[in-house]
Amino acid sequence: MTHPRRLKLGLSFYPSGYHVAGWRFPGAVPDGGVNLRHHVDMARAAEAACFDFFFLADTNAIWDESLEAVSQTTWSAKFEPLTVLSALAMVTSRIGLIGTASTTYNDPFSLARRFASLDHISGGRAGWNLVTSASGLEAANFSRERHPRHADRYALAREFVAVVTGLWDGFEDDAYLFDQASGVCFDPAKVRRLDHQGEAFQVRGPLHLPRPVQGRPVMVQAGLSEAGRELAAETGEVLFTAQSELPVAKAFYDDVKARVVRHGRAPEALSIMPGVVTVVAGSRAEAEDEIATLDRLLLPAAGLAFLSGLIGDTDLSAFPLDQPLPPLPATEGPKGRQSFVLAAAQRQGLTLRQLYRSIALTSGHRLVYGAPVDVADQLEEWHAAGACDGYNIAPAHMPGGFERFASQVVPELQRRGLVQRAYAGTTLRDNLGLARPPARRRAPEAAP
Amino acid sequence: MTHPRRLKLGLSFYPSGYHVAGWRFPGAVPDGGVNLRHHVDMARAAEAACFDFFFLADTNAIWDESLEAVSQTTWSAKFEPLTVLSALAMVTSRIGLIGTASTTYNDPFSLARRFASLDHISGGRAGWNLVTSASGLEAANFSRERHPRHADRYALAREFVAVVTGLWDGFEDDAYLFDQASGVCFDPAKVRRLDHQGEAFQVRGPLHLPRPVQGRPVMVQAGLSEAGRELAAETGEVLFTAQSELPVAKAFYDDVKARVVRHGRAPEALSIMPGVVTVVAGSRAEAEDEIATLDRLLLPAAGLAFLSGLIGDTDLSAFPLDQPLPPLPATEGPKGRQSFVLAAAQRQGLTLRQLYRSIALTSGHRLVYGAPVDVADQLEEWHAAGACDGYNIAPAHMPGGFERFASQVVPELQRRGLVQRAYAGTTLRDNLGLARPPARRRAPEAAP
Repeated sequence: MTHPRRLKLGLSFYPSGYHVAGWRFPGAVPDGGVNLRHHVDMARAAEAACFDFFFLADTNAIWDESLEAVSQTTWSAKFEPLTVLSALAMVTSRIGLIGTASTTYNDPFSLARRFASLDHISGGRAGWNLVTSASGLEAANFSRERHPRHADRYALAREFVAVVTGLWDGFEDDAYLFDQASGVCFDPAKVRRLDHQGEAFQVRGPLHLPRPVQGRPVMVQAGLSEAGRELAAETGEVLFTAQSELPVAKAFYDDVKARVVRHGRAPEALSIMPGVVTVVAGSRAEAEDEIATLDRLLLPAAGLAFLSGLIGDTDLSAFPLDQPLPPLPATEGPKGRQSFVLAAAQRQGLTLRQLYRSIALTSGHRLVYGAPVDVADQLEEWHAAGACDGYNIAPAHMPGGFERFASQVVPELQRRGLVQRAYAGTTLRDNLGLARPPARRRAPEAAP
Repeated sequence: MTHPRRLKLGLSFYPSGYHVAGWRFPGAVPDGGVNLRHHVDMARAAEAACFDFFFLADTNAIWDESLEAVSQTTWSAKFEPLTVLSALAMVTSRIGLIGTASTTYNDPFSLARRFASLDHISGGRAGWNLVTSASGLEAANFSRERHPRHADRYALAREFVAVVTGLWDGFEDDAYLFDQASGVCFDPAKVRRLDHQGEAFQVRGPLHLPRPVQGRPVMVQAGLSEAGRELAAETGEVLFTAQSELPVAKAFYDDVKARVVRHGRAPEALSIMPGVVTVVAGSRAEAEDEIATLDRLLLPAAGLAFLSGLIGDTDLSAFPLDQPLPPLPATEGPKGRQSFVLAAAQRQGLTLRQLYRSIALTSGHRLVYGAPVDVADQLEEWHAAGACDGYNIAPAHMPGGFERFASQVVPELQRRGLVQRAYAGTTLRDNLGLARPPARRRAPEAAP
């Protein structure tokens, strides 16, 4: 049975493929992260396939506690997301452009300004994937003695969002007149200076830009922890998740949608989009061969470094590779991901080598592989079961893996009426069926 | 006599013209600051005229202590510079792209990353105009109790530059191999982690990007004060200045070049480029008519607000408009500009109205107006006298004022052999005749 709502699709753009060794796969673009042409080609290909958005993950440091290990990956060679998304805005016209930025290591005024600028430049296609940063190595790049604790990061994030959205709402939608005859550029009565006086931030405003095309760039989040779910339910419009099993995904979906409703919002106001790592081939066996090739291309040091970074800077080099995973100490890394990954590994009795190979391929996300119809079936299944509103598609290797998805899986999903054949509008909100939010009203008691 | 060195040209892009009321001039694009098409058209026109660079000024706040006054200007409607420069990189191929960013209200790791990304994306055309921020209103947007004092801002700027350039040098030029066969992305021996432990910043690094195409984006500065001159002489590669009189400009030029040499650098390592406001018309009388039109279009509140902001948040609304300027208290605003502007006004016995009209047109920069040959003569004069290496051209109104400069003055300067007829290379360093800096050597005692 086809689920009545359309399935939304994002391209989670890892320039050389999602797999840690994807850059070594035949046909890959090994310098993809700093190859502008490759970014342009893939963004255009995703737009030609009517993807709702193009998404760039990010961190503010490389996980280089072992420089040897990180030298076997391409993590150290990638553009800053907003900079390259602005460039991509010039060579695309409909696809959304979502960039990751941390609330722990940014300033809200600057970030509000950059996303608002991107939204204007792209004609309303900007989205902000809010993260609170997972790695303590980021603190060391920002003159901080230590990475803030998980709870503190989320408290800060909540205030950060209030400041950023308040700055975006600084001019009413019809404030600007640009009236050459009278010399009035904007109506001063339609300015809402922020004057935020909070725990962490004191920000006067207004932001020196007309309100963004979309009112506000689309708010994207990825936290799976209790605090992450709450923040998403309150303020998020897209939620990226990492689940590999349908019952868990369904329970998560229902839990978060109930939270959205408890915050007084319509359930459709937040699209829940699990990440899916895809390997599309002529057959299931051929896809398995591709995965085996990726396994072989993965050097152990790189695999361990990636696993270590993912679960929060835990040194794993002392543990034996071919014995079951020992209990690991809790860290201040990403709570949700950490517990999901480790619980699944312990449930399945994986060895460290098996775990890092699995993590290097999926990071705990769902793996979908096989022939195009087979892949389409698997994507339809979760959607029909009410476990998601769409997917953030991460091909295991690029560009081949994505080209096959776009040319073979997307048409199959279109035949089934599951994904769009054309863009409905011109903004990311149009793509996602999200209303343009009105500017927040100034509280009556705060009016001058 | 033609000066042997080529005269360099930048377009100082004020989207609706340099004059505060330029947006009201017939033919202006009143919403130019948020009009992407206008940015694209002007950047392409500047490239067609072989300008060395396209330059965007910036502040992190609008001077809105009087909202009424600021509503008569277009200051509140402009893109964040690096965001739009990245977009412009996609529609140009030779012209340099210089953006302004403050060392007082940015973080060095993020800023180094953004400029390095822009340099990669543009194929080596990025330049950073370093400012320390003039306005106390900026502090209020960044959770700061007060704007740092002038001396403190320059001490911070010096350390900020050391961090940023150190991060750009984090990977040796030949560190990246992207070798799919061996699985080695870069040579770990060619990484120079920064590990900066300074007064204001502690930054580990490395920056996760290959070294910028230019080695380092071009360093641009605009400070005229003692501290500003010293920082430029030590680290700058282009210096924007604001002078209106040839002897003063010549003395400044000689002073700064001597400082450059004292810092052990070749005098050509720093190009001194005064800002010049241009009004090109059929004749000198027609140009004067255009200036009179701009005077008429300038509403008094806007003129006063601009003057106030320029000299550092001084409230001028209580002073009579048509009497000579009274002595004003010293502020923590931009020392150099402030003293130049006020000294000139007092020397000339200007009234407040005369001063704000003059400032609204030139901000204390040189005004060059008249027929194309006349304008070319004036530009040649300072260059021949050894008072500059080129000009940062700011047309009083846009796009007409720039189109006339590009189509009538540039060909005249080309005929005289003063400016280039074609680009010599592909990077901003190529345009400016600057060598690509080698990565800083790790000090021997700090080697592992």
